[in-house]
Amino acid sequence: MSSVAPTFQCINCSTRVPLDQAVYACPTCGHLLEVHIDPEVFRARGPEEWKALFDQRLAGQPGPDGSGVWRFREWVLPGLPVDDIVTLGEGGSALTRSPRLNEHLGIDLLTKQCGHTLSGSFKDLGMTVLISHVNRLRKLGHDIPAVACASTGDTSAALAAYGAAAGIRTLVLLPTGKVSAAQLVQPLSHGARVLAIETDFDGCMVHVQKLCGEGNVYLANSKNSLRIEGQKTVAFEICQGLRWKLPDWVVIPGGNLGNVSALARGFEQLRLAGITDRIPRIMCAQASAADPLYNSYEHDFAPLVPQQAQDTMANAIRIGNPVSFPKAIHALKASAGVVTSVTEQELAEAAREADAHGFFLCPHTAVAYGGIKQGIKSGLISKSQQVVVVSTAHGLKFTEFKNHCAADTIPSVELPEPYRPIHVEDDLAQVLNAALGE
Amino acid sequence: MSSVAPTFQCINCSTRVPLDQAVYACPTCGHLLEVHIDPEVFRARGPEEWKALFDQRLAGQPGPDGSGVWRFREWVLPGLPVDDIVTLGEGGSALTRSPRLNEHLGIDLLTKQCGHTLSGSFKDLGMTVLISHVNRLRKLGHDIPAVACASTGDTSAALAAYGAAAGIRTLVLLPTGKVSAAQLVQPLSHGARVLAIETDFDGCMVHVQKLCGEGNVYLANSKNSLRIEGQKTVAFEICQGLRWKLPDWVVIPGGNLGNVSALARGFEQLRLAGITDRIPRIMCAQASAADPLYNSYEHDFAPLVPQQAQDTMANAIRIGNPVSFPKAIHALKASAGVVTSVTEQELAEAAREADAHGFFLCPHTAVAYGGIKQGIKSGLISKSQQVVVVSTAHGLKFTEFKNHCAADTIPSVELPEPYRPIHVEDDLAQVLNAALGE
Repeated sequence: MSSVAPTFQCINCSTRVPLDQAVYACPTCGHLLEVHIDPEVFRARGPEEWKALFDQRLAGQPGPDGSGVWRFREWVLPGLPVDDIVTLGEGGSALTRSPRLNEHLGIDLLTKQCGHTLSGSFKDLGMTVLISHVNRLRKLGHDIPAVACASTGDTSAALAAYGAAAGIRTLVLLPTGKVSAAQLVQPLSHGARVLAIETDFDGCMVHVQKLCGEGNVYLANSKNSLRIEGQKTVAFEICQGLRWKLPDWVVIPGGNLGNVSALARGFEQLRLAGITDRIPRIMCAQASAADPLYNSYEHDFAPLVPQQAQDTMANAIRIGNPVSFPKAIHALKASAGVVTSVTEQELAEAAREADAHGFFLCPHTAVAYGGIKQGIKSGLISKSQQVVVVSTAHGLKFTEFKNHCAADTIPSVELPEPYRPIHVEDDLAQVLNAALGE
Repeated sequence: MSSVAPTFQCINCSTRVPLDQAVYACPTCGHLLEVHIDPEVFRARGPEEWKALFDQRLAGQPGPDGSGVWRFREWVLPGLPVDDIVTLGEGGSALTRSPRLNEHLGIDLLTKQCGHTLSGSFKDLGMTVLISHVNRLRKLGHDIPAVACASTGDTSAALAAYGAAAGIRTLVLLPTGKVSAAQLVQPLSHGARVLAIETDFDGCMVHVQKLCGEGNVYLANSKNSLRIEGQKTVAFEICQGLRWKLPDWVVIPGGNLGNVSALARGFEQLRLAGITDRIPRIMCAQASAADPLYNSYEHDFAPLVPQQAQDTMANAIRIGNPVSFPKAIHALKASAGVVTSVTEQELAEAAREADAHGFFLCPHTAVAYGGIKQGIKSGLISKSQQVVVVSTAHGLKFTEFKNHCAADTIPSVELPEPYRPIHVEDDLAQVLNAALGE
C-alpha cells in the first residue's frame, strides 16, 4: 500500500506521533490521541470490491479471516503484518431479532451480541488490536516487559486473555480488599500477575502510569486509542450483517464513552470507502446514577461537569468523569446523536422484558434498552424504524444482577413479582396443577 | 422438494413414526429414535452448489441465514417453513487456534467455541430445532401447553431461552433443596416455571414423563432425537470453517453421549452430499469418575455396564448410564473412533495449560483436552495432525471450577502453585518489583 502509515494524532492540536511510540496523550497539549489513517486507505478499492473481499472472509474460519476485527484488517492498523496478529476469534457475533418483542415495541430492534465471546464482553475487540500491536513492537526489538491496566472488571479479563494468547506478561492493579473472587477468576486463570495494592482505585491509576513510565510497561487502559481501532469494527459488522445497509439508529450504553466515538468512527470510515452515504443516528444511554454526558447534551453540549457517580447496577458505566468525553461529543454531533438517562427502575424493567423474550441482558445493555423504550415513548424513534442495540457483555458475567432482578431485590426498584421456584409435593396431581395452572 | 418428509425412525427395528407425533421411544420395541431424512435430500444439489449456498449465508446476519443451525436448513428438518423457525443467532461460533499452544503440543489444534452463545452452551443448537418444531406443531393446532425438562444445568437454560423467544411456556422440574441460585438464574430470568418437587432427580424424571403423557407437555430431555438435528450442525460448521476440508480428529467430551452420535451423523451427511469423501476420527473423552463408554471400548465395545458415577468437577457428564450409548457405539465404529478416560488431575492440568494460552475452559472441555494430551503421548494422534476440539460450554458458567482450579483447591488434585494476588504496599519500588520481578 503506497499510503502513509498510520500515526497517533491529537484530536485538539493535530500533533502526530509515530505509532511505535508508547504515548497515551498529546506530547504538545496533553489532549486525547486518536489513530490517524490516511483516507486514501479507504479509497484503495471500490465499494463493491471491498464488500466482496470482506464477504469472502467467513466467521468460523481459523485465523485473522475468521475474526470480526481482522476480517477488516486493511482498515485496522493497515500495514501490520498478518503474522503478528493475536486473535481469539473475536467479533463475528450474532445480530439477533425477537419478532415477538418487536411486535410489542412496534420497531425493528436487532441486538448485536458483542458479549458472546471469549472473555464475555466487547473489550476483546479492542484488546486484540492493542496486544497485536505490542506483539509487533516486541518483535521489532522494543523493550516492553508487560502490559498493564487498573481495572476490576471486563478490561482486565480481556487483557489477560490476549496476553496469554500472545505470551506477553499482563499486570492487573487493584486496591487491596476491594476485590471479589468473581472479579479475579478470569485474569488469574489466564495467568495475569494481579497486584493488590494498599491504596484506592485512583492510587492504582497513579501506579499504573508510573509503571508505564519508569518500567516501560505498556498501558491498556482506555486512554490508549489503539483499543478504539478494534471497537470501531462493530460498525463494520453491523453494516455487513445488514447486507451493507445501515439501520436508522444504533444504541449503546455509555460510561467512559470510548464506545460512542468508536461507533461513529467506524460508520465514518464506511462512508469514506463509498459503501454507505450516511451515518446512522447514535443514541448513548447513560445510567441516571452517572450521566454527565446527558447533562451536557441537555444543555446544548455544554462543557463537561464531572459528577460524583452514585450507586447503580450498571457498575461498569458508573463513571462521573469520562475519559473520552470530547470524542463522544464529536461523534454525537456528527451523527445527529442523542443521549438518554435511564433510572435503575427503567433498567430493571427493560432487563425483565428482554429476558422474557429470549435475551439475557447485562445491566449495561439493559440501560441501552431502557433508552430505546424512552425513545419510542417520546416519539424520537418512529414506528417501524430499524434500531440496532450493541450488547456490551454477556449476562453470565453479572449473575448478582440477574439474581437481584429475578428475586426483585434491587435497592429502590419495584418489579411486579419475584421469580421463584414453585414448591410442590411428590404427587402427580399437584405437579400437573403447578405446571399447567394459571 | 419432491423427497419424502422426515420421520422418526427406530435405530433398532426401523419402525417409522410421523414427525408430528410426540414420541420419544419406539412404539414397537422401545429403543431410541432418530430423525430419518431421505438421502435424496442431500443429493438434491451438487456439492459445489451446496457450498456456494451455505457460504453466501453469513454469520452475523439477522434471522435463519445468520444462524449456524438454520444456514443448513435444507438438511435440518427439511420442509419446516422458514417462518416457523425460532432462532437466537445460535452457532456461527469461532474456530480458535493458539499458535503458541500448538507449538508446545506439536499438533494443529483448533477449538470450536460452542459456548460463545446466548445460554453459554452447545445446548442452544439442539433447542432451536426442538422449539421451532413445537412452534410449528402449535401453529398446526396441536395442543401443546408447555415444553419441559428435568435438569439443573445447561439444558434448562437453553430450553427457557428458546421458549421465551417463541412465547411457549417452559417447565423445569427439580428436586427440592438440590438447587443453587446460580443454576436457577437463567431459567428464572427467561420466565420458565420452575417446579421444586419433594423427591430426588429420578423422581423428577418420572414426573416429567407423566406430564408429557397426561398433560400433553412436550419433552425436551435428551431422549428427544430432535435435538440431535441441531447438534449435528457442529460438523457442518467445522467443515465449512476449514473451507470444506476435514480435520484428522474431532474430540468431544462424553456423558449422555448424544453429542458423539450428532457429530458422526453430521459428517455422514456431508459425505452423502458429496462434499467430503471420508469421516474424521472421533475421540470421545470421558471423566474417569463416569466412564462406562470407555469400559465398553476397552473391551471391544462390550455391552453397557452401568456405573455408579463418582464425583467429578465435570458434573454435566457425571452420568453412569448414558441414554445414547447405542448411538455412540455406532458413531465410533463408523469413524474409527476411540474413547479416553481422563482423571480429575488431568482435567485440571489441561484447564490450567489451555487457559494460560488464551482459552477459558469449562470442566467438560478440559476433559476433552486431557484426552488429546493422552492421545499425543501415546502416539495415537501423530505430530502435525489437525485436531478440532468441541468446546461445549463457556467457562463463565463454571466459576466455582475456575476458582478451584486457580486456587488449587480441587479435591485429590495437586497443581504446581495456587494463583493468587500479590499484596504490596502503596510504594512505587515495591510495585515495580512485584510487577517486573521473577
